[in-house]
Amino acid sequence: MANYNVVPLQRLVEQFERLPGIGSKTAQRLAYFVLNMPKEQAKEFSDAIIDAHKKIRRCEICCNFSDEELCPVCRSATRDKSTICVVETPRDALALEGTGEYKGTYHVLHGVISPLNGMGPDQLCIKELLARLNNGEVSEVIMATNPTVEGEATAMYLSRLLKPLGLKITRLAYGIPVGGDLEYADDVTLARALEGRSEL
Amino acid sequence: MANYNVVPLQRLVEQFERLPGIGSKTAQRLAYFVLNMPKEQAKEFSDAIIDAHKKIRRCEICCNFSDEELCPVCRSATRDKSTICVVETPRDALALEGTGEYKGTYHVLHGVISPLNGMGPDQLCIKELLARLNNGEVSEVIMATNPTVEGEATAMYLSRLLKPLGLKITRLAYGIPVGGDLEYADDVTLARALEGRSEL
Repeated sequence: MANYNVVPLQRLVEQFERLPGIGSKTAQRLAYFVLNMPKEQAKEFSDAIIDAHKKIRRCEICCNFSDEELCPVCRSATRDKSTICVVETPRDALALEGTGEYKGTYHVLHGVISPLNGMGPDQLCIKELLARLNNGEVSEVIMATNPTVEGEATAMYLSRLLKPLGLKITRLAYGIPVGGDLEYADDVTLARALEGRSEL
Repeated sequence: MANYNVVPLQRLVEQFERLPGIGSKTAQRLAYFVLNMPKEQAKEFSDAIIDAHKKIRRCEICCNFSDEELCPVCRSATRDKSTICVVETPRDALALEGTGEYKGTYHVLHGVISPLNGMGPDQLCIKELLARLNNGEVSEVIMATNPTVEGEATAMYLSRLLKPLGLKITRLAYGIPVGGDLEYADDVTLARALEGRSEL
């Protein structure tokens, strides 16, 4: 669609189009919204982008995003350092943190093994994980990669890698989501729910 | 949801949450995406926001967004200056422009009359429209406000205002959308489609 050749506007639309899940119509809507913001708000938005890039780095222990050397979880004295939950992305850690149930620490791989996408074990934060396991403080590693082919493969790869260290290696439970409906659950999930049944 | 107190990240998420149609989960996804962009791309994004604000102003004739004194449509020698299509927002003008069928000019009101939202005729670009009609060059004004209560009211208000000037004032046709289904069309639309029927 012609954009009247208003170059700065077109450029802003293109920037929004780059974002995941944002199509050209939505990008337009967002660009016009930003254009209609008060100037100070637009400045805040623009600064937040640059700031995030400047100030956020990876935690030196768990590779999660952090604005200091160590992330808040690794810094915290109240977290259980003997349990590490291995996740694919910082957002997965965030989701687990949202439960309020987990008191251990995380380790963010920043991806999964996916040869088709050129992601091998070397591209992931695996050596950082191994470094954490050397001091004997850790007793359990929970594999919390996603239940996808790549996530499973990564979990398998890691558990084989970690087995010789004599740690307890666990995997998040599969089953029917709470509030879900048996009728609509897929076969594999149902089979796994059956397999992992527990006594009442 | 706790965001680990990573302040710059939280701030970026909040910026995205301000955008229309972006909920907290999507804002998170977008913020992490921006964080994973190469630095130069993030800079481009940030600059595009500031640039759009700095460089874009309203066309002195039609009030549409423009990066020069006049917008490309008003600047163009090939557009029919005798027809003005009145729209609510720049995006509406863009949508009409997308058809490639319209060769006249636009006039952007930047809103609709909506007393509940504190929008009266004075807040809209109406005096700029009246100024354009004084030179006798214009012969037709097409009301292309949205078919909503406010859009209709605005079109009515304007047409009463312009009637004394002896111009031809038209309204976009109502009817069934192309590719639409009679069965699923609402009653009002169907009634209008019947009313506006044309000979084959």
